[in-house]
Amino acid sequence: MPYFDAASSLPLHPVARQALLAALDEGWADPTRLHREGRRARLLLDAAREAASEAVGCRSDELVFTPSGTRSLHTGIAGALAGRRRAGRALVVSAVEHSAVLHAAEAHEAGGGTVVRVPVDRTGRVEAAAFGAALRESRSPEGGTALACLQSANHEVGTEQPVEEVAEACAGAGVPLLVDAAQSLAWGPVPGRWSLLAASAHKWGGPGGVGLLAVRKGVRFAPPPPADERESGRSPGFADLPAIVAAAASLRAVRAEADAEAARLRALVDRVRAEVPALVPDVEVVGDPVRRLPHVVTFSCLYVDGEALLHALDRAGFSVSSGSSCTSSTLVPSHVLRAMGVLSEGNVRVSLPPGTAGADVDAFLAVLPEAVREVRDRLRAPAAAVSAPAAADGADAADTADTADTADTADTADTADTADGGENDGPEAADPGREAALTVDSRGKRCPIPVIELAKVIDRVPVGGTVLLLADDEAARLDVPAWCEMRGHEYLGVRGHAHRVRRTA
Amino acid sequence: MPYFDAASSLPLHPVARQALLAALDEGWADPTRLHREGRRARLLLDAAREAASEAVGCRSDELVFTPSGTRSLHTGIAGALAGRRRAGRALVVSAVEHSAVLHAAEAHEAGGGTVVRVPVDRTGRVEAAAFGAALRESRSPEGGTALACLQSANHEVGTEQPVEEVAEACAGAGVPLLVDAAQSLAWGPVPGRWSLLAASAHKWGGPGGVGLLAVRKGVRFAPPPPADERESGRSPGFADLPAIVAAAASLRAVRAEADAEAARLRALVDRVRAEVPALVPDVEVVGDPVRRLPHVVTFSCLYVDGEALLHALDRAGFSVSSGSSCTSSTLVPSHVLRAMGVLSEGNVRVSLPPGTAGADVDAFLAVLPEAVREVRDRLRAPAAAVSAPAAADGADAADTADTADTADTADTADTADTADGGENDGPEAADPGREAALTVDSRGKRCPIPVIELAKVIDRVPVGGTVLLLADDEAARLDVPAWCEMRGHEYLGVRGHAHRVRRTA
Repeated sequence: MPYFDAASSLPLHPVARQALLAALDEGWADPTRLHREGRRARLLLDAAREAASEAVGCRSDELVFTPSGTRSLHTGIAGALAGRRRAGRALVVSAVEHSAVLHAAEAHEAGGGTVVRVPVDRTGRVEAAAFGAALRESRSPEGGTALACLQSANHEVGTEQPVEEVAEACAGAGVPLLVDAAQSLAWGPVPGRWSLLAASAHKWGGPGGVGLLAVRKGVRFAPPPPADERESGRSPGFADLPAIVAAAASLRAVRAEADAEAARLRALVDRVRAEVPALVPDVEVVGDPVRRLPHVVTFSCLYVDGEALLHALDRAGFSVSSGSSCTSSTLVPSHVLRAMGVLSEGNVRVSLPPGTAGADVDAFLAVLPEAVREVRDRLRAPAAAVSAPAAADGADAADTADTADTADTADTADTADTADGGENDGPEAADPGREAALTVDSRGKRCPIPVIELAKVIDRVPVGGTVLLLADDEAARLDVPAWCEMRGHEYLGVRGHAHRVRRTA
Repeated sequence: MPYFDAASSLPLHPVARQALLAALDEGWADPTRLHREGRRARLLLDAAREAASEAVGCRSDELVFTPSGTRSLHTGIAGALAGRRRAGRALVVSAVEHSAVLHAAEAHEAGGGTVVRVPVDRTGRVEAAAFGAALRESRSPEGGTALACLQSANHEVGTEQPVEEVAEACAGAGVPLLVDAAQSLAWGPVPGRWSLLAASAHKWGGPGGVGLLAVRKGVRFAPPPPADERESGRSPGFADLPAIVAAAASLRAVRAEADAEAARLRALVDRVRAEVPALVPDVEVVGDPVRRLPHVVTFSCLYVDGEALLHALDRAGFSVSSGSSCTSSTLVPSHVLRAMGVLSEGNVRVSLPPGTAGADVDAFLAVLPEAVREVRDRLRAPAAAVSAPAAADGADAADTADTADTADTADTADTADTADGGENDGPEAADPGREAALTVDSRGKRCPIPVIELAKVIDRVPVGGTVLLLADDEAARLDVPAWCEMRGHEYLGVRGHAHRVRRTA
């Protein structure tokens, strides 16, 4: 049963398991105590710190263990911001950081700080020059930039960031750079002159509950209160020492296999990247094709419900994840896909664990087209409430009656405008409803239904004519323009919940 | 090799080990994911939450897992203070709470909040009425009391606190009570109408890295930022699920054995409490003899260096801990002993793990007198620089020459006064140096040397005469008065570093 969600969490590496079991008998005491059990625990902790810091590429007294990568990020960001408070209160981050970074940034804003989010291109990559400019130009009321954060590689689409160049820019600007290395540390140390680094053991086959936080000597750092004596005052509380031992041991082990395994998985991912668009119609493979993690590939499927596809693949024996908004755990599409401006519906992230066999990837490629077709077939039934000029298709209307929107036809565009205060995202969106030849009301419907309903009516307007799509699902802002680009129609913009599309093909 | 530091951390309970191993294969995936590995992890997490909440005595949706008892306390205190900010900003705690609570209280003060520390009696117990009065009377600039914290039992001396009565007082005052149940949860649920509860798995034989935080429905609670989706937003980051499973399973297991084991250990501790003072001269057994944890007993030995005694016992095969300031990990005596006002030098905490054999306790009692004698013999050599009227003992002076204080004789009391701003702790301390017949300069010397030097000269003054002891070790403030009480001399007070003692016996 192939598990293709390595970027989320990995099973315990055999070396981690072995080290964990070995440490259970010696690693339960408090390492700060002076008795023999405490001293033994201390030795284990010291050895784990030595091993982990060597793999990170820092001094052992620069590295502490935390309870998770998220806690490493929270503490690293709060500590560096507090330590550099006199330098200013601006925090520069990329728009595609892990939510732990973005949530820490929101907390900083809530506390009166300033946050600058550097945009990414369509592959999910920040431009080093733009990041550098943001560093220099960011101004908070109290001064300049206190801290910059950049991931080594994106967790959803695998795109590598220009960490080394950004680190140089940061060094030039006198701003410490915190690198979120959660996705890449298994593959090698982070290059360049970074100042802080965070990572998480369960991403490389270590146990859950272990994060790393490195803070280079010389970086001003004030750990967030309350005070605590453990881990240089940077991670309060009694730690799970056997888990720490297992984390350090497995990091060394995966590093020993990293180069060979990276090359092998890279080839498998290249195959997925090449074959998925050939096997499945209307697919957008996203992320940088070359400057990327070896094991991650992400694609989105038009007219597909991400959660339904995930379940279909799960039934077929493949575990993947999805950044679509149409999964039960979230109501908005992934912020990464949004920042990239790519299709979010039917989104699938395939992340191969070390050891994935080529045959497993073959099996996935064999199963995927049918799984997508199955979901599309099921979704093709519902249709929009079409206002004019063509009459609504009776069968379609009946299928969507449960949303109770079929009677809403006249003046819906104006209603939508009023409700949303006239947000204007498009070049011609000043009054998107004015010339529409056809209005489709998809409000109350979740992705990918609005796009499907749009697709079903576009041929009912003449070339040059427009369709007004009313859709209050957040994903529509991403998926309607993406659909237009894939289909060659012109996206005229959105106002409130009213998207206007011109048929050009 | 008996390990008598159970209150610090316990070896993994066999049930915990078994559960941990069983969960390693199923509990590594992200429980928020929709695939089968995620669903399996979710089932384990849900089952662990059910089991743990049953043992705590709360609803399962009131309980979250955190990375440690310390984090539970930090989050519980910060979340309750923030949630009740409109009620006021006063926090009421006992003076003998765990350092995690006191550090959180300091953080609250640093943020502009008010903290009231309720004193304890000589057994380490708060009086419920005094706690209740503090609740009602505490005023912060923004209003009244937001939160109260009380441990179920003290971690250093084992004294149980009147949690049930204090909970009633809190309920009456409309103030939520957070109970730190770290030391008692293994023995049974915390009685009474508490609002929040924190605990730590490694204290009951679960793994490190697992804390519990219960927040009763209806308690206003605003988790400290940054936001995170996991554990009801109350504990960010990917958790160590196998450790959580092991924690919950072992809590059930130790509870099944708790009553019988408590009775057995209580009898063993009673033996230690009775026999130590008979076997070792000049010992003070501290803590409540009856209202106490079943497995903890603490005593302090006059003229003994706590760290040296700990090492002597360690060499003899017994692992204990110490709240003395003369241990390498700390420079001040334990805040618990200070709050109780008892002797802190030569402090030993014996905390018996479940299963401790009577023979192990016998062996400890057989070894202890010789260990104490050994340390005392070694310490008897150094002596004070005695100013007048007796000449300094040449041999003693040579032994203490490394402190380079022997020449400091005249006017040292005044120097000490100036340096410390004239703090005045005693009834007659207005000018403690004035009538002293003898001055002993023990500055720069650590406990128990100042008390030993005092003891060596007291007979050189006539009955009714006074000794002025100059001692800048923090422990002297506790140990000099305690010595006076044990020896029947009169402690006249301290000013700066100058303690005045009148020989009465």
